[in-house]
Amino acid sequence: MRRATIAWGALCAAGIASAQTSAVQSSSDGSSVTLFGIADVTYGYGTGSIASKSQLYSGGNTASRLGFRGVEDLGGGMAAGYWLEAGLNIDDGSTGTTNTNNQPNGSVGGFNFNRRATVSLMDFWGEMRAGRDFTAHYRNRTDVDPFSNNGAGTSQPQAGSIGGPTSTRASNIIAYYLPPNLGGFFGEVQYYFGENGSPAPIEHDGTGYSGRVGYATGPFAIALAAGRTKFARTATSGDIDSANLGVSWDFKVVKVMGGYYRDKVDKLPEITATGYLVGAVVPVGFDQFKVSWSTYGTDATGDPTARKWAFGYVYNFSKRTALYATYARVSNSGGSTTAVNGSLTDPNRSSSGYDLGMKLAF
Amino acid sequence: MRRATIAWGALCAAGIASAQTSAVQSSSDGSSVTLFGIADVTYGYGTGSIASKSQLYSGGNTASRLGFRGVEDLGGGMAAGYWLEAGLNIDDGSTGTTNTNNQPNGSVGGFNFNRRATVSLMDFWGEMRAGRDFTAHYRNRTDVDPFSNNGAGTSQPQAGSIGGPTSTRASNIIAYYLPPNLGGFFGEVQYYFGENGSPAPIEHDGTGYSGRVGYATGPFAIALAAGRTKFARTATSGDIDSANLGVSWDFKVVKVMGGYYRDKVDKLPEITATGYLVGAVVPVGFDQFKVSWSTYGTDATGDPTARKWAFGYVYNFSKRTALYATYARVSNSGGSTTAVNGSLTDPNRSSSGYDLGMKLAF
Amino acid sequence: MRRATIAWGALCAAGIASAQTSAVQSSSDGSSVTLFGIADVTYGYGTGSIASKSQLYSGGNTASRLGFRGVEDLGGGMAAGYWLEAGLNIDDGSTGTTNTNNQPNGSVGGFNFNRRATVSLMDFWGEMRAGRDFTAHYRNRTDVDPFSNNGAGTSQPQAGSIGGPTSTRASNIIAYYLPPNLGGFFGEVQYYFGENGSPAPIEHDGTGYSGRVGYATGPFAIALAAGRTKFARTATSGDIDSANLGVSWDFKVVKVMGGYYRDKVDKLPEITATGYLVGAVVPVGFDQFKVSWSTYGTDATGDPTARKWAFGYVYNFSKRTALYATYARVSNSGGSTTAVNGSLTDPNRSSSGYDLGMKLAF
Repeated sequence: MRRATIAWGALCAAGIASAQTSAVQSSSDGSSVTLFGIADVTYGYGTGSIASKSQLYSGGNTASRLGFRGVEDLGGGMAAGYWLEAGLNIDDGSTGTTNTNNQPNGSVGGFNFNRRATVSLMDFWGEMRAGRDFTAHYRNRTDVDPFSNNGAGTSQPQAGSIGGPTSTRASNIIAYYLPPNLGGFFGEVQYYFGENGSPAPIEHDGTGYSGRVGYATGPFAIALAAGRTKFARTATSGDIDSANLGVSWDFKVVKVMGGYYRDKVDKLPEITATGYLVGAVVPVGFDQFKVSWSTYGTDATGDPTARKWAFGYVYNFSKRTALYATYARVSNSGGSTTAVNGSLTDPNRSSSGYDLGMKLAF
Repeated sequence: MRRATIAWGALCAAGIASAQTSAVQSSSDGSSVTLFGIADVTYGYGTGSIASKSQLYSGGNTASRLGFRGVEDLGGGMAAGYWLEAGLNIDDGSTGTTNTNNQPNGSVGGFNFNRRATVSLMDFWGEMRAGRDFTAHYRNRTDVDPFSNNGAGTSQPQAGSIGGPTSTRASNIIAYYLPPNLGGFFGEVQYYFGENGSPAPIEHDGTGYSGRVGYATGPFAIALAAGRTKFARTATSGDIDSANLGVSWDFKVVKVMGGYYRDKVDKLPEITATGYLVGAVVPVGFDQFKVSWSTYGTDATGDPTARKWAFGYVYNFSKRTALYATYARVSNSGGSTTAVNGSLTDPNRSSSGYDLGMKLAF
Repeated sequence: MRRATIAWGALCAAGIASAQTSAVQSSSDGSSVTLFGIADVTYGYGTGSIASKSQLYSGGNTASRLGFRGVEDLGGGMAAGYWLEAGLNIDDGSTGTTNTNNQPNGSVGGFNFNRRATVSLMDFWGEMRAGRDFTAHYRNRTDVDPFSNNGAGTSQPQAGSIGGPTSTRASNIIAYYLPPNLGGFFGEVQYYFGENGSPAPIEHDGTGYSGRVGYATGPFAIALAAGRTKFARTATSGDIDSANLGVSWDFKVVKVMGGYYRDKVDKLPEITATGYLVGAVVPVGFDQFKVSWSTYGTDATGDPTARKWAFGYVYNFSKRTALYATYARVSNSGGSTTAVNGSLTDPNRSSSGYDLGMKLAF
């Protein structure tokens, strides 16, 4: 280490430790690797007017993953970090798919660090981060969902999103994150490359930008985000704009949260989707009861819309290990056929289902 | 940790530590990851009446792998565990293939936790385990084979198995294992989902169940297993039934073992295969001499049958590192063309070959 | 451990520790796993007469990777080692491709230990190593390139190589390495299997051998290497012969290095390529300034040849973390269209570009 004087510690930890889990850690000659992961397996059942389905799947409570990350204190208030996080499925051992160019043709299967692959440089001014990561406009979907967009309880604004390849994550991001000590303000801006070698009009496909700004104080948090990913305008694709707002208030006996979502695809003709979420998490001793109501629908012919109720209970054996049960019911209108847990349902018919699962964090 | 009173220790270790290897282990804030693996590389030569083959391959003694596993003591006699184990090849660095639905079309390449991906909850009553794992009806093939179904010495009931996609492992298993303290009795039952969204008649393809019960006391062990995987009846597939029996007796100067195997595929017309194995392992100081004779044949036209002699020597540098040599010879009848180590042989002609390899466990 | 008397220590370390990085290390019951890696992400820009390109890519300074390795002291002057090293990309989380048979059709995608997958047995007489690794005739390309064949600065003899599937690495290698205590002499011989089950004339495709011998004393090092990979002679392929010479002298205020390269493909008609490199690395405090000039051209019609200037600066925050910038300019003649960083240029027109990146080693 060199060019060092000021301690960095706490800033660094706050800047990078945004994941729920952390595990094995040891070091030799100044280096450090933290190996971490989630193993979550679920029995999922769904039934609709056409067909029901029983299955074992992975990630009913938290997405299963295996990761490697570390931070090096560079002194002088600076630190460098890396984060490699790969998705996986406990039910069959299969692994994830990433996207190399933020476009539908960019999918790559196999074991990939599809959840996150980043390098960071952090100091008092904030964090520069480059690689693959969540888009800024995704966070208001997961942060205020009691089910964090996992399993049968996944909110409709997530389950039905028309936000395209960068709805959740993007590759080739260069981002700046505000430091964590701004009196409650937080935020980030991201620019990502589609790396499209193609000539016009698709030379910018997959390129985009996203930003978020928020304020958190005591029990209250609010954040506003917006992003655009460019695609040439055709009958099936076009620029995708996503904007959303998330709010939460922790009353201790209950944490309530809400979200508003608006996604627009500028194809011919343009399509706009609107969604809402209201949710609550109630601590029950060591355990949790969760409930959410969410809706998402578009202005396509008939205004197809799905509305979901979800109820869940998490029984925590320990900080790391839990059993959980979730029940969800979707009602459809305007021709929507949304169904729960792989079942099939007719237009405007409802569907319901449940998860019974176990999660270990390591 | 919570809801705790009774110590759990030994039960937990016995319940989950069924692998031969274990390695790096460290922990922070109560979590633990054990990183383990096998690196085994082999020069293999085979010769038959048509063509011979020289190659470098992986796993002549023990299948190469990389894994991550851990156990959390939950108190009250309970524990939770996870196990992620991926196959790999040392000769070319390539990685494994898993199967998502227990059907021929469910293969997925890349680095996958194809060997095992499970979550377990264990207490005095036994272990609930969910995910991808060995089928119960596989274990009598590997447990009594001196070569553990690896390399040129692999038994014919394994090498020639007509047991289909779940012959060795299945995905989407929910299983119950007896606890290890039942006076020598052990066993498990498994149910696995084919997760077939298809309409009849193939809606149950890949779904099945398997069970095993055994008794071990001092030097003697015996186990009986049977399983069925469902497939719609056609000219090429149908329900697969596998049943087998394994026995071993350790006389210290020699451990002898035997197996009987019966697999039936209920296609049109039905086909039944029958196999036997007799083997012995002789300790020679730190080293081992191994020998086996096995046969496997079906009642298809001509009753094609292969018989194999295998001889092996394992030179152990340490508990973890070994050099090994194996010689095998197969004779064919009834039109069988089984050949050793990638060579080719004419119907009813013999084939032979050998392995020279090195294995490290970590 | 057994059969032990003589300490082995230093030999073992020298024999296996040829990588630049090492990291997490811990052990239980005598086993050891070192988890190591590189996370390197780069903004790369290139421009040519046809098209320019902006992108985020991975490995501008050092190729990104994740690896697992270990050594076991067997006593008696012996040791065993394993090394599993997988390539990955920080920009999009995607992972590497390996080659199972040293032939163009042998590519396998997904997460693979494509960079190295070996098992070693080492004693005072040297090291036997088997698996996938660099070919001996590759090392003179990377060892004397100030940019180690990474990023925009990659030397032309590497960027333009006609050396085929085994130009950098081969699978299925059996190799012998001289021990490190021969008064400055070092070297290795390798034989690799194409494992081609095909009949003549392509039965030897992908099979080959390579060797290197060198001498290093104080600031001076020189090495000579040559290899051949066999392919049946057609209009598009044939035996590939590569020979090269690398020299370096470290004057402390500047380290100068040079290389000569000759690759021949014995197709119809035969094609021969010749290349040169002259480079220098100048320490600037903790940092480094790098410069290289290299050329590579073939005797195909017109003698297409590319010449590259590359300039780089590496700002080292610490031993493990660096920022870097590289500028490169290629000029083409004889119809060559070599371009920098994914840009496109017309025949005989130049191309230039730069990298701005960050590297962490763990």
